[in-house]
Amino acid sequence: MENKSASGSVDTNAVPEDVTRESKAKKIIIDTDPGIDDAMAILMAFNSPELEVLGLTTVFGNVTTALATTNALHLCEVAGQHAIPVAQGEPRPLSGEEPLPADFVHGTDGLGNTNPAAPSGRAHESAAVDFLIAAVNKLPGEITVVALGPCTNIAKAIQLDPSFAKKVAQIVFLGGCFFRSGNVNPACEANVFCDPKAADVVFTSGADVLVVGLNVTERVVLTTSDLERIGNSGTKFGRYIAEVVKFYAEWHLKSDHLQGIFVHDPSAMTAAIDPSLFSWKEGVVRVAETGLCRGHTLLDMGTKKWGENGNPWVDQPKVKVALDVRAEEVKRLIMNRLMSETT
Amino acid sequence: MENKSASGSVDTNAVPEDVTRESKAKKIIIDTDPGIDDAMAILMAFNSPELEVLGLTTVFGNVTTALATTNALHLCEVAGQHAIPVAQGEPRPLSGEEPLPADFVHGTDGLGNTNPAAPSGRAHESAAVDFLIAAVNKLPGEITVVALGPCTNIAKAIQLDPSFAKKVAQIVFLGGCFFRSGNVNPACEANVFCDPKAADVVFTSGADVLVVGLNVTERVVLTTSDLERIGNSGTKFGRYIAEVVKFYAEWHLKSDHLQGIFVHDPSAMTAAIDPSLFSWKEGVVRVAETGLCRGHTLLDMGTKKWGENGNPWVDQPKVKVALDVRAEEVKRLIMNRLMSETT
Repeated sequence: MENKSASGSVDTNAVPEDVTRESKAKKIIIDTDPGIDDAMAILMAFNSPELEVLGLTTVFGNVTTALATTNALHLCEVAGQHAIPVAQGEPRPLSGEEPLPADFVHGTDGLGNTNPAAPSGRAHESAAVDFLIAAVNKLPGEITVVALGPCTNIAKAIQLDPSFAKKVAQIVFLGGCFFRSGNVNPACEANVFCDPKAADVVFTSGADVLVVGLNVTERVVLTTSDLERIGNSGTKFGRYIAEVVKFYAEWHLKSDHLQGIFVHDPSAMTAAIDPSLFSWKEGVVRVAETGLCRGHTLLDMGTKKWGENGNPWVDQPKVKVALDVRAEEVKRLIMNRLMSETT
Repeated sequence: MENKSASGSVDTNAVPEDVTRESKAKKIIIDTDPGIDDAMAILMAFNSPELEVLGLTTVFGNVTTALATTNALHLCEVAGQHAIPVAQGEPRPLSGEEPLPADFVHGTDGLGNTNPAAPSGRAHESAAVDFLIAAVNKLPGEITVVALGPCTNIAKAIQLDPSFAKKVAQIVFLGGCFFRSGNVNPACEANVFCDPKAADVVFTSGADVLVVGLNVTERVVLTTSDLERIGNSGTKFGRYIAEVVKFYAEWHLKSDHLQGIFVHDPSAMTAAIDPSLFSWKEGVVRVAETGLCRGHTLLDMGTKKWGENGNPWVDQPKVKVALDVRAEEVKRLIMNRLMSETT
């Protein structure tokens, strides 16, 4: 992290050279902690003509930040996308606590204990936070950040650059659970649990935020037979995913008695591709940072006029929360992108 | 509160004389903070052959505990039930904080600023906690407590008498909000907000607990025209309710843009009369006592096997939470009981 600009000033060296080229595709930066379902979402993105991947930024969560960087570089190379910059992100949450990787879900290598090839590429010279700030300042209103891990990098970018929230086109955040149980405990979902404060910073930043939580992602299921179909598709991505997903599927059987997997990160990527496949409710979301409900995400549905004393949901910017999903169509899109020949 | 047994030993003087008489009706003690919808629920109970009201215990919440006692005595007299004992309860939550009555919802007198007649009767000589402990020890397995306010009295009874949770037949608790917004703020419902610790004590006590939360009670609505029908029914209770409810209806218009009222406490009383009108989910419920989600009630739906490190929902007794309601049938029963000639 030595190259990080402590002042938060714009480091133009961090902007990829080609981000200014004309494209009808949505320009995205993927903030990610790969992670098996991150891997699926990243490969999907490379196979989606609606998206132009400007870079990846890495974060702790499923794995350590250092391993996330290694895996992100590896995944770019699997996809033949050697030129995609991968900027290493924050090693720990805003609170400074040491994160605990979810190796029981993703394997010790984060990719299902498949012993992935060491990448030949190296991380970008800029730290993730500087990379993000530089990118949105170079192309204000054009870059969508698809945040698949704890949103520490994005929260820091918002804190360091007061213009970030307005200059980023959109933040699509995979996290939280709305009016449904979490997956760390009944109160919370893993990405928000890892950095509740960062999630609260993002939700109350005034940025255009789409929140894709467990309440919709656990309705998008790839069954064992879907996974077999992907594996047997004969495509490079299909074969790759079929291998890394095995460990993840075993965990779902133990944790959820599910013959298949929930498709969290690819669902969020789908929301970046086609948000019309979800129903969005606009409202204020706050995150509990302490107590029994630490990491709980609560949406004010806006049906009540709160008293004059107010509460933490009053006078805050709104975000858009996915409350419903056309699950079969999302699943079809995900399978299609993972079973197509790579671009 | 001078007559309270600090030791929690059984004070047989607190048991009403007639509680041992034969009856097919469910014996209930109503723990209450009247409160306009408490008044409706209490009058309903007196008019329900399925229930035999052994006594009322009072608590802060909608009003102070002292005013709750005055109003409970008044309501017994309105119903001609002069012999029903009213035992005064705890003046403040387990945390010891001073409660703030909800006069903006129920009026400064708790009964819609209707200037109710001062009762001629006086509170029972026992404090509520002793009354409750004595009653369930005299009739173990026979008494249902219908808790319409913060459940401080019941939590104290559980703490003072280790056998209370098993000797009480059932606790029907009006409180919490499950997978839906609260009414104090998006996180919590008023009864639990007033004493989150007490609710957690009750939920984890091992007692047979039915929890009736906002998620179902806000689906039971008496419209303006329903309230007019009740007022025009020509019955004593109907005329009384039509008067006290006016203030409450005005508040619903301001707070919820609702032409009518949510029927919280009478819905809980209905659950005591006929629990089959609700769908119950059995699971562990914990309550956040601090932080942004203070007072939030979270049910573990039991769909996930949590990790070995456990969490506060693991290895706790289960309660039954109402997740669905046959709202029209509940409403019909409530209206029927409020519009019948009194027994």
